[in-house]
Amino acid sequence: MKKLINSPDAVLADSLIGVAAAHPELRVDHSNRIIYRGEGTKTGKVALISGGGSGHEPLHGGFVGFGMLDAAISGEVFTSPTPDQIQEATKVADAGAGVLHIVKNYTGDVMNFDMAAELAGADTGVTVETVVTNDDVAVTDSTWTAGRRGVGVTVLLEKIAGAAAEEGRDLAAVAAIARSVNENGRSMGMALTSCTVPAAGKPTFDLPDNEMEIGVGIHGEPGRRRVALAPASDIAGMLVDPILADLDFTSGPTIVMLNGMGGSPLIELYLMYGEVARLLEAAGVTVGRSLVGNYITSLDMAGCSLTLLRADDEVLSLWDAPVNTAGLRWGM
Amino acid sequence: MKKLINSPDAVLADSLIGVAAAHPELRVDHSNRIIYRGEGTKTGKVALISGGGSGHEPLHGGFVGFGMLDAAISGEVFTSPTPDQIQEATKVADAGAGVLHIVKNYTGDVMNFDMAAELAGADTGVTVETVVTNDDVAVTDSTWTAGRRGVGVTVLLEKIAGAAAEEGRDLAAVAAIARSVNENGRSMGMALTSCTVPAAGKPTFDLPDNEMEIGVGIHGEPGRRRVALAPASDIAGMLVDPILADLDFTSGPTIVMLNGMGGSPLIELYLMYGEVARLLEAAGVTVGRSLVGNYITSLDMAGCSLTLLRADDEVLSLWDAPVNTAGLRWGM
Repeated sequence: MKKLINSPDAVLADSLIGVAAAHPELRVDHSNRIIYRGEGTKTGKVALISGGGSGHEPLHGGFVGFGMLDAAISGEVFTSPTPDQIQEATKVADAGAGVLHIVKNYTGDVMNFDMAAELAGADTGVTVETVVTNDDVAVTDSTWTAGRRGVGVTVLLEKIAGAAAEEGRDLAAVAAIARSVNENGRSMGMALTSCTVPAAGKPTFDLPDNEMEIGVGIHGEPGRRRVALAPASDIAGMLVDPILADLDFTSGPTIVMLNGMGGSPLIELYLMYGEVARLLEAAGVTVGRSLVGNYITSLDMAGCSLTLLRADDEVLSLWDAPVNTAGLRWGM
Repeated sequence: MKKLINSPDAVLADSLIGVAAAHPELRVDHSNRIIYRGEGTKTGKVALISGGGSGHEPLHGGFVGFGMLDAAISGEVFTSPTPDQIQEATKVADAGAGVLHIVKNYTGDVMNFDMAAELAGADTGVTVETVVTNDDVAVTDSTWTAGRRGVGVTVLLEKIAGAAAEEGRDLAAVAAIARSVNENGRSMGMALTSCTVPAAGKPTFDLPDNEMEIGVGIHGEPGRRRVALAPASDIAGMLVDPILADLDFTSGPTIVMLNGMGGSPLIELYLMYGEVARLLEAAGVTVGRSLVGNYITSLDMAGCSLTLLRADDEVLSLWDAPVNTAGLRWGM
């Protein structure tokens, strides 16, 4: 295993030390592994928090700041944070208007966020609403999931619901737009290589030199099928087709994210985006906004995922609103 | 070779199609492989152009936009663009106040930019100034370089000189600040793995599972030495020490970039930054600004590089000035 780490046990703690050093505008609670906004949540603003296993950077810690999250909780690599951690983040972020929990659909995350919401309500009276993302069309039920997995739409949801909260909407309204984003978003991923979890020290799964995994999960969970390596133009079809088969994207503008899994260079991600854009145009899908890069990763996995989100003028306006985080920044 | 490509010959052309599709705010001259500002260079503003071999994304195309470059020329992967391409970019970018060529110190790049500057002057009377970056302390002379290699300081220079040009400074002044940035910047890199050039189809160099290359170049050129894998804290010392031995960074604030080579995930890059920040503090170096992520890469190489730049109030102010590019964006 070749990694820039001190020891497999200390990866998360050591990385958070670096986050704190690199981002004086953020605060890091090292004992609870919480990254939160240095200036705090503005009084009366709905707070957004999210979290999950580490290894998907910049998700979620890289999306803390104006216009997105108020706090992010880091579990160990590919491991849900505990209810105690989430409860603490809920208290830290609450500014009197309630807290939205944004949870990717993995059994451990859903259970621990639920427990934290109950604890936070009983302990401090904080009102919590929860949105669970489940946008991955690849499979129903998976290694750590009942139902569909939550993947790339989580990034778009954090941006759009974050803008709604920044506008001063109340908790019910922010939760409603968040749920709407999830319902209108779909994703599909693929891997050329496995990732390697530091604590395991070896690749999560074996993938022969001449094969790739279509529909892979962000922790290396099995996808739909293994196929022979193929040109990018074919791979693009293997991502676009199942998404378009699942939901109609021709009725309005679409936000398109071509996301890297962590180990694929940007020159390849742009190349893939070009192939995807061509297929979308042929299918009558109008690209309203696009995003190409590493936003929800799987450590050092080579591969990519595609997320499409049906948008309308309101969603595009929330997407375009200013955002100031380490991982996404525009308009300020 | 596992890559998201159609064919090794078409990687650059196909990737530029994706860049054009993803960035309607940019223009792409596909035949000359030039990315330039969609709104053009403002009349009377000094134009900044840079370029080199592809495979270092987001450098340089990702730095075209307000506050940085006016145009970027892409050579094939790890291959200099031709004088004709550079001449064309010089003409496209010129807005009457002259053009600064920003060139990393590799023999082919230096020669081709020189020829292009002569051609542009003779052909259209455009005034060109050139700055050559040579910040890599690892080695003197290398596979494709006489003298020191130009690496990470190029990113910082494009930002800082770009801000100076945006302020309306003249060509001599913009060139002067660019040269000053190069003189005050130093870098050192390392690799855990080789990269794989698509046209070659196999790793550029062999690196055993238990070794790493200290002082590697951004094309996989040999560094100072190969050593056994070591903890991140030791690796940080192998980057910090040779830089501090080469130049004194204790006299004022320092801009610090911890750059990924392309294949190392962000959780590791932040971890490395934490180790570097600790060593800099112990050495009496004050971090004025910091940047962590993939900015000048080597395709899919795992590893990182460190760049330090001595700054003063003027340089910090130019660094903080608004920038709006795909690869760096703040303040707007």
